[in-house]
Amino acid sequence: MNNFDFFNPVRIIFGKDTIAQLPELLPRDTKIMMTYGGGSIKKNGVYDQTIKALEGFDFIEFGGIEPNPHYETCMKAVEIIKRENTGFLLSVGGGSVLDGTKFIAAAAKWEKGDPWDIPAKKLPLKSAIPLGCIITLPATGSEMNCNSVVSRESTHEKFDFHDPAVYPKFSIIDPECTYSLPERQTINGIIDSFIHVVEQYMTYDVNTPIQDRFSESILRTLIEEGPKVLENPFDYESRANIFWSTSMALNGLISAGAVQDWCTHMIGHELTAAYGLDHARTLACVMPSVWRYKFEDKKQKLAQYARRVWGLNCDCDDFAAKQAIILTEEFFHAVKMPTKLAAFGIDAKEAAAEVMRRFEAQGRLFGEHQDIDAAAAFKIVENA
Amino acid sequence: MNNFDFFNPVRIIFGKDTIAQLPELLPRDTKIMMTYGGGSIKKNGVYDQTIKALEGFDFIEFGGIEPNPHYETCMKAVEIIKRENTGFLLSVGGGSVLDGTKFIAAAAKWEKGDPWDIPAKKLPLKSAIPLGCIITLPATGSEMNCNSVVSRESTHEKFDFHDPAVYPKFSIIDPECTYSLPERQTINGIIDSFIHVVEQYMTYDVNTPIQDRFSESILRTLIEEGPKVLENPFDYESRANIFWSTSMALNGLISAGAVQDWCTHMIGHELTAAYGLDHARTLACVMPSVWRYKFEDKKQKLAQYARRVWGLNCDCDDFAAKQAIILTEEFFHAVKMPTKLAAFGIDAKEAAAEVMRRFEAQGRLFGEHQDIDAAAAFKIVENA
Repeated sequence: MNNFDFFNPVRIIFGKDTIAQLPELLPRDTKIMMTYGGGSIKKNGVYDQTIKALEGFDFIEFGGIEPNPHYETCMKAVEIIKRENTGFLLSVGGGSVLDGTKFIAAAAKWEKGDPWDIPAKKLPLKSAIPLGCIITLPATGSEMNCNSVVSRESTHEKFDFHDPAVYPKFSIIDPECTYSLPERQTINGIIDSFIHVVEQYMTYDVNTPIQDRFSESILRTLIEEGPKVLENPFDYESRANIFWSTSMALNGLISAGAVQDWCTHMIGHELTAAYGLDHARTLACVMPSVWRYKFEDKKQKLAQYARRVWGLNCDCDDFAAKQAIILTEEFFHAVKMPTKLAAFGIDAKEAAAEVMRRFEAQGRLFGEHQDIDAAAAFKIVENA
Repeated sequence: MNNFDFFNPVRIIFGKDTIAQLPELLPRDTKIMMTYGGGSIKKNGVYDQTIKALEGFDFIEFGGIEPNPHYETCMKAVEIIKRENTGFLLSVGGGSVLDGTKFIAAAAKWEKGDPWDIPAKKLPLKSAIPLGCIITLPATGSEMNCNSVVSRESTHEKFDFHDPAVYPKFSIIDPECTYSLPERQTINGIIDSFIHVVEQYMTYDVNTPIQDRFSESILRTLIEEGPKVLENPFDYESRANIFWSTSMALNGLISAGAVQDWCTHMIGHELTAAYGLDHARTLACVMPSVWRYKFEDKKQKLAQYARRVWGLNCDCDDFAAKQAIILTEEFFHAVKMPTKLAAFGIDAKEAAAEVMRRFEAQGRLFGEHQDIDAAAAFKIVENA
């Protein structure tokens, strides 16, 4: 096991009717800004539940945070916060609203020039406005980490940052809020969480049996629960188990002491940037191709995954690992997620050239061996 | 899954040579009290490493915290803290030193009369002196929770309390510190952790696949790593994996949303009180007997455990569950832990009468169905 530093102070309030616990969690001695997105919370009852729980608190609303939250939108909130002397942020919505709120929290306390430097230059924060959230979409895991991704519309830039100062003080997870999700978002969330785990697990062995088995626990649970929730969107237990899988997938626990990859995400980000394809869709197409391209490097872990997650009873690592890739693709298809770019009308060869061009411009190397360069990315996307 | 509230803000610094990171973790603007026990840290090098790391800090030492830390000893530290205006506690040692330090931290800020009320009456804390620890014994899990058990010598009372105010700010875990542990303590730690998991897992199903699989992950890891570390006490990887298992076993994660038992612990505490038997030894004798006594209630989970942790390929729940009990006893024996009180010179029938008497005096009910009374405890201990 590698040395590690693990810290995750987020309080999770999980279960039915938990939005009603808001009054015990919010400060009464400062003005609160409630942030949200495009209004889906007004349709599914979350907005009304929140407003009811906020009775007696001094609060203002800031709606309109878009998917892939814009720096420009967030800075409008910062202006209001400074003017209104707001001391707490309550994010109500999915991962984008929460990511935007994390950036707002950081930017409102930033004193060293343009807050865009926080994600662009990954500068450490001195402090941030404390925040909490009601999270309504199981996907990004943002409710239990200190990560945020923000986009700048004017320059077409998209950067992430992570800083302990923006850990939510609390995250309320009521799985019933997810009943009304469009199927596409439910599917994207399952795949996104699955691949978050894979990026921290499907690398090479440094003797981390707890972390490996925790990863396998999440993967197996997603495989079992995913199809159930598509079958019956009102299955509370499956909604709950998927949401908890999502939070566990990216809270630092399974990567502590282990080796991480993230090359699927790096390639996926470029495909989203180039073609506007949903994040999870890019991942679903790229991941199997990464596994095949790095087959020898990942074979031992793929075989372990085949045996433990898929119950494959087979001594041959090579065969088990190959079967694991096929079984995973079949699972993706079972939850209605294609694994080829062609299914989304994108020509893989053309996309490969585009991604290669972008990787060449960046000049960075990715993957657990830091050996995925532009040429490797071309080959991966070509077969996606 | 049941609703839950999960919060664990402990920062874990894990790995080789991590004591050297102390200077980045400690406050420089207040006096620090370093607490420790009977001096084993002076033999294994931990004391020297700590003193070296404390160079330049304003600190005092308080040694002599005994196993099952005494209220009386802790109150001496409280007196010094108040006199010396100490603002941070650094616990260096095992779970007892840390439990004592948690009580000291709470008592030093207690303003409502006798601090013994904190554990005796489970009164909530308003605040506590912040504390951190270097933990040298994988067993109690105290390094990653806010629990503490304190004994009062003068009245022969022993009470626990838990309060978020006494979460360690950080816990340094260097598995190399455990190389020099006496074998008996290594064994006790493995069994203690194993049974911590069992108490939160071997109950009944409320649809918690993540929590179940995380529990199974820890159990399987202890089963694999336990014998290795007895074979070779200097096996870093096994020491590391056992320590991380221990911390994960009692940090709130596997019980979140699940159903808990704790009846083995309740009976075990009385056996320790009556016969002075090591905590882990009492648990090892009581647990299999609890499983047999509550066989029907626990059969489904026992069978799941048989299949997932022991790889038993068998359709019959009854057979699988019975095999699981035998395999668990065999594992305990493999790590040199007896599972019968007779092995420790205690007559089970006599002990059963003694435990029954104590349970009758308490009048409380235990177990996941709250149906373990004095008569049930008699039957459990009789077969232990």
